[in-house]
Amino acid sequence: MTSGTFITFEGPDGAGKTTIIRMVAEQFTNVLLTREPGGIDIAEQIRNVILAKENTAMDPRTEALLYAAARRQHLIEKVKPALAEGKLVLCDRFVDSSLAYQGYARGLGIDEVWAINQFAIEKMMPEFTIYFDIEPELGLQRINKNKGREINRLDLEDLEFHQKVRQGYQLLMDRFPTRIIRIDASGSVNEVYKQTIELIENKLAKK
Amino acid sequence: MTSGTFITFEGPDGAGKTTIIRMVAEQFTNVLLTREPGGIDIAEQIRNVILAKENTAMDPRTEALLYAAARRQHLIEKVKPALAEGKLVLCDRFVDSSLAYQGYARGLGIDEVWAINQFAIEKMMPEFTIYFDIEPELGLQRINKNKGREINRLDLEDLEFHQKVRQGYQLLMDRFPTRIIRIDASGSVNEVYKQTIELIENKLAKK
Repeated sequence: MTSGTFITFEGPDGAGKTTIIRMVAEQFTNVLLTREPGGIDIAEQIRNVILAKENTAMDPRTEALLYAAARRQHLIEKVKPALAEGKLVLCDRFVDSSLAYQGYARGLGIDEVWAINQFAIEKMMPEFTIYFDIEPELGLQRINKNKGREINRLDLEDLEFHQKVRQGYQLLMDRFPTRIIRIDASGSVNEVYKQTIELIENKLAKK
Repeated sequence: MTSGTFITFEGPDGAGKTTIIRMVAEQFTNVLLTREPGGIDIAEQIRNVILAKENTAMDPRTEALLYAAARRQHLIEKVKPALAEGKLVLCDRFVDSSLAYQGYARGLGIDEVWAINQFAIEKMMPEFTIYFDIEPELGLQRINKNKGREINRLDLEDLEFHQKVRQGYQLLMDRFPTRIIRIDASGSVNEVYKQTIELIENKLAKK
């Protein structure tokens, strides 16, 4: 039924993920580059509830359910129709982000967060997932370079959290060894891009 | 940890549920009568997304996840603190409504909807659930009597749906034979109320 190809991209901020996906997308014509909520009205409304500053009382499980709800709507309204049209769909973050960040780093449990996401996506998993792996220290340095400032105390708390996120992604690679493909994102943008596009072209050639 | 008592009430509209819970609540002093979203700001925001007329594109699974999210927040912010204070909490509809309406009557699957609700409530199930059972035809007649009109074509579609909802509740009674207690709601309000309050007082006396 779905004739297109669904690829998702994962990794922490500072790994160059967004830049590289854009470069990849430029190499294809029949392509959709997206990320949740992806301009889907209902998904945007859900995202607004998640992100509203006044919602400090939001429970982490409420948040995880809202992310799954926004994911579902984005998948049904945007990803699924694009795949039906034969498009290459490149999605910046998907289920694995919820598993690594909320399931593992925030402690809700990978299995628990996986269960609600299974309900949301009904087996519509990507054909493969590219995980941009980077030492949290290096990722953080890159983010701070962009902001033009030194690492501070809050960044160090951040560092501990991002180390947990990375452990989460490592657990996911153990669990999904064929689906998730790791790319070392410590090199230059061009080096990482080259590895990424080669990997995708190889995969597409084998279809 | 929770010293109060958590009771939920289920059944279709037209069974007299809301009227009878109010009458029950009046018999107790340390009581909380509530229903989702229950004045909880975050749960209300979620409910607004579910109910917004323009959201016609909402997928049934998105909706089920949003109900579970609103349920979580109401449970954490309102029900749990009241139970910790030793209150008797009477909740008008809870998990079983999602299972009967969305899981069974809308066809998402009772097990699937149960899974996301387990994530939402983390075993905080009611001590028992009173299910007001009524023939869908009779429930519909009562609703129409309130509205001062005859049964029409749309009501008949409604009838078929409510027959499915009733089948759903019957499946839930088979699954949870000790938790869910059926009360025949075909009698007068006073008759049904009498049965209900006797049942609750008996249960509370045994605690």
